[in-house]
Amino acid sequence: MRVYNFSAGPSMLPEDVLLQVQKEMLDYDNSGMSVTEMSHRSKYFTAIVTEAEQGLRDLMNIGDDYYVLFVQGGASMQFEAVPLNLLGKNAKADYIVSGNFANKAYEEAKKYGDIRCVASSKESKYTYIPKPAKSDFTKDAAYLHITSNNTIYGTRYVKFPETDLPIVADMSSEILSRVVDVNKFSVIYAGAQKNIAPAGVTIVIAKKSLVDVDYTLPYCPTMLKWSTQAEKGSMYNTPPCFSIYVAMLVFRYLKKLGGVPAMEEINEYKAKLLYDCLDESKFFRSSVAVEDRSIMNVTFVTPSAELDAQFVAEAAKNGLVTLKGHKSVGGIRASIYNAMPVEGIKKLVGFMQKFESENK
Amino acid sequence: MRVYNFSAGPSMLPEDVLLQVQKEMLDYDNSGMSVTEMSHRSKYFTAIVTEAEQGLRDLMNIGDDYYVLFVQGGASMQFEAVPLNLLGKNAKADYIVSGNFANKAYEEAKKYGDIRCVASSKESKYTYIPKPAKSDFTKDAAYLHITSNNTIYGTRYVKFPETDLPIVADMSSEILSRVVDVNKFSVIYAGAQKNIAPAGVTIVIAKKSLVDVDYTLPYCPTMLKWSTQAEKGSMYNTPPCFSIYVAMLVFRYLKKLGGVPAMEEINEYKAKLLYDCLDESKFFRSSVAVEDRSIMNVTFVTPSAELDAQFVAEAAKNGLVTLKGHKSVGGIRASIYNAMPVEGIKKLVGFMQKFESENK
Repeated sequence: MRVYNFSAGPSMLPEDVLLQVQKEMLDYDNSGMSVTEMSHRSKYFTAIVTEAEQGLRDLMNIGDDYYVLFVQGGASMQFEAVPLNLLGKNAKADYIVSGNFANKAYEEAKKYGDIRCVASSKESKYTYIPKPAKSDFTKDAAYLHITSNNTIYGTRYVKFPETDLPIVADMSSEILSRVVDVNKFSVIYAGAQKNIAPAGVTIVIAKKSLVDVDYTLPYCPTMLKWSTQAEKGSMYNTPPCFSIYVAMLVFRYLKKLGGVPAMEEINEYKAKLLYDCLDESKFFRSSVAVEDRSIMNVTFVTPSAELDAQFVAEAAKNGLVTLKGHKSVGGIRASIYNAMPVEGIKKLVGFMQKFESENK
Repeated sequence: MRVYNFSAGPSMLPEDVLLQVQKEMLDYDNSGMSVTEMSHRSKYFTAIVTEAEQGLRDLMNIGDDYYVLFVQGGASMQFEAVPLNLLGKNAKADYIVSGNFANKAYEEAKKYGDIRCVASSKESKYTYIPKPAKSDFTKDAAYLHITSNNTIYGTRYVKFPETDLPIVADMSSEILSRVVDVNKFSVIYAGAQKNIAPAGVTIVIAKKSLVDVDYTLPYCPTMLKWSTQAEKGSMYNTPPCFSIYVAMLVFRYLKKLGGVPAMEEINEYKAKLLYDCLDESKFFRSSVAVEDRSIMNVTFVTPSAELDAQFVAEAAKNGLVTLKGHKSVGGIRASIYNAMPVEGIKKLVGFMQKFESENK
C-alpha cells in the first residue's frame, strides 16, 4: 500500500508518472531498450532532453535570453559553481543567510572572494526571512545570493529582495510550486529531488549574457563551468539520463494539470489546510514568522519532545511517514511538495486533531 | 521486443535487474514508496547504500585500506578531481595517453600542475596501448594516470604498467569485467553507465592513506574532495539514489553469477567469438593491435564507409542496434559489456557472416 510520504527530499513523485516509468522500464517507446540503457546520443534520448528543456521553459516562462541546463552534483555543487562562474570580473558578492543551506552556500563562497553576509536570521534560529533594505547591499557586488525557501525551518521569501544586483537563487525546495518571474533573477538553480525528479539532476537557469561573457575564475573546473554545458546542450558528458527522463514526465504532468498557476493554487490550498489546523490548535505550535511561512515545508512542535516522537511514530502507523523534523531543529516537519495529494494533507490534519484530543 | 544493444554507454543492464526495478517501482520492500521517493537518510536507503558498497568490496576484493565512494559527475568530473585531490604535496604527475578520454584527463590536469605525457599512441590513432619502461616515469610524480580500457578505439591494458608511482586508473568501460588486483592501484574510478548502473553515479575506490593525508589543492571544491564523501559515507548531500539502488541490484546479480571470475570467463568467451569472426574474415578488418584488444569494445570496418553504414542499418533491422563507431573514428563498434548476453554475440556473428557473403 502506498503511503503519504512527507520527506523533505527525495520526496513523492506523481503516481501517474511512476506508473508510466514502470510500464516503460524494459522498453521505452518501442525502442526495445530501457531509458537507463540507451545512448544519450540516441534519437530517443535526444527527444527526451529536448522535451524536458522545453517543458521547463514553458512552465516557468523562461525566455531565450536564458540557458536551461541539466547538471550533476545537487545544489551543494552549485554552492561552489556560483562563485566559480561569477566572481571573475569582481570578486565580491552578497549573501542573505536565511537557513542552513543558505549558510553553507555562503561559507563555500568565502573561499573564492570577498563575500559579505548582508543579513542573517541565524541568531533567531532562522525562524524568519531577513529583509535588508536596498541600501544595505554592496554597490559593486557581482551578485546577491538567496535561498528562496528554507527546507529545514519552513520559511520562504514571499517577496524577493529589492536590489539592482543580479540575484542568484537556490530554489531547490520550491521550484515549480509557485509562479516566479524568472526575469527578476540572473541565475536560478535547484536540485531536482523535491519537486521535479529523482535525485541526480540539478537544474540551472542562467542568463546567457552572464554565461557568455565568461566571468569564471581561472581555476574553475571545466565540468562546473555553466558555459561547458551550455555549449553542449547539457551533453558535455553522459548526463543523468533517468532523472532527466522522469523530469520530462513530471513537466508533462504539470502542463496537463494547468501549469504552475494551477499547481500554486493547489499548494496554497494544501498549506492553508495545515496552517489553519496549527493556528486553531492550542497543542501544536509553529515558531515560524507568520508572514514568512513556507508552503512547501511546514514545521511545528507539540508541547514536548516526547510527544513529538510519539506523534511521528503514530502517524507512521497511519500511513503518514517521514514527519520527523530535521536533526538540527527537532520537532515535526511536513514537507508538502507538488506531488503530495490534497488527500494526504486532509489525512494528516485529521490525524493531528485526533492526536491533540487524545494527548492534550 | 527487447533488442541487443551494442551502445558504448549508457548500455544494457541485466534483464532480471530491470524486471526487479519494474516490480518495485511504486513500492520498495513494502515501504509504500518508490526508491526514487525516499529520504536518503531513511532506513531503506541506508540499507541500499550499505549493501551497494559491500557488494562492490566483495566483488573486487577491496580491502579496508580503501574508501569506496559513490559520487556524481561521471569520469569527466574525476579528470579534475584527481589532480585537485592529489597534487597538493608535489604538483607533478605522469599521464599515458592511450585514447580520447585519456587525452581529456591529461588536458584537464595540465591546469593544475606540471603534467607530463609519458607516452602516447595518438600519432597512430590510438590503435595500441603505449608501453613505457619503468625508467620512463618521473621519479617524484604524485601519480601515474592511465585509462585501462579505451572505449572509442577498442584497446585495453592486458598488463598494467610497471612503476613505483601510485597508479590512478579510469576503469569506466571495463570495471567488473575482469579480475583486477585493486592493491596495485591507488585510485580507481569509473562512471557507472557501462557495467554497473544507469548514468548518474561514479565509483571512486581510493587508498585511505592517500585521502586522509590530504594532498588536495587549496581551491579544490568541497564537493570534489574525496575526503568530503569519505567522511560522510557518500552522503554529504543527496546522492544519486536510483543509480546506487540499481548498482546494488547489479552487484547482487554478479555475485549470484559467480562473481568477477565467472563474468570474466563469459566476457573472454564473448570477445573470442567476435574476434575469431573478424580474424577469419577477409571482409571485416580491425586496425587494433592484436595484443591490446579490448574485450569490452570491439571496433572494425568493412571495405568501405558506405558498406559500414549499410551494415549498421541492416543490423538494426535485425535487432542488433547502436553498432555505429564513434564519430571521431567512424566504422563499426560493438560494445559488449557484462550485460550483453552470449546470444547477442552469436546473433551478431551470424549477421556478420551473412552480410559478408552477401556483400563481398
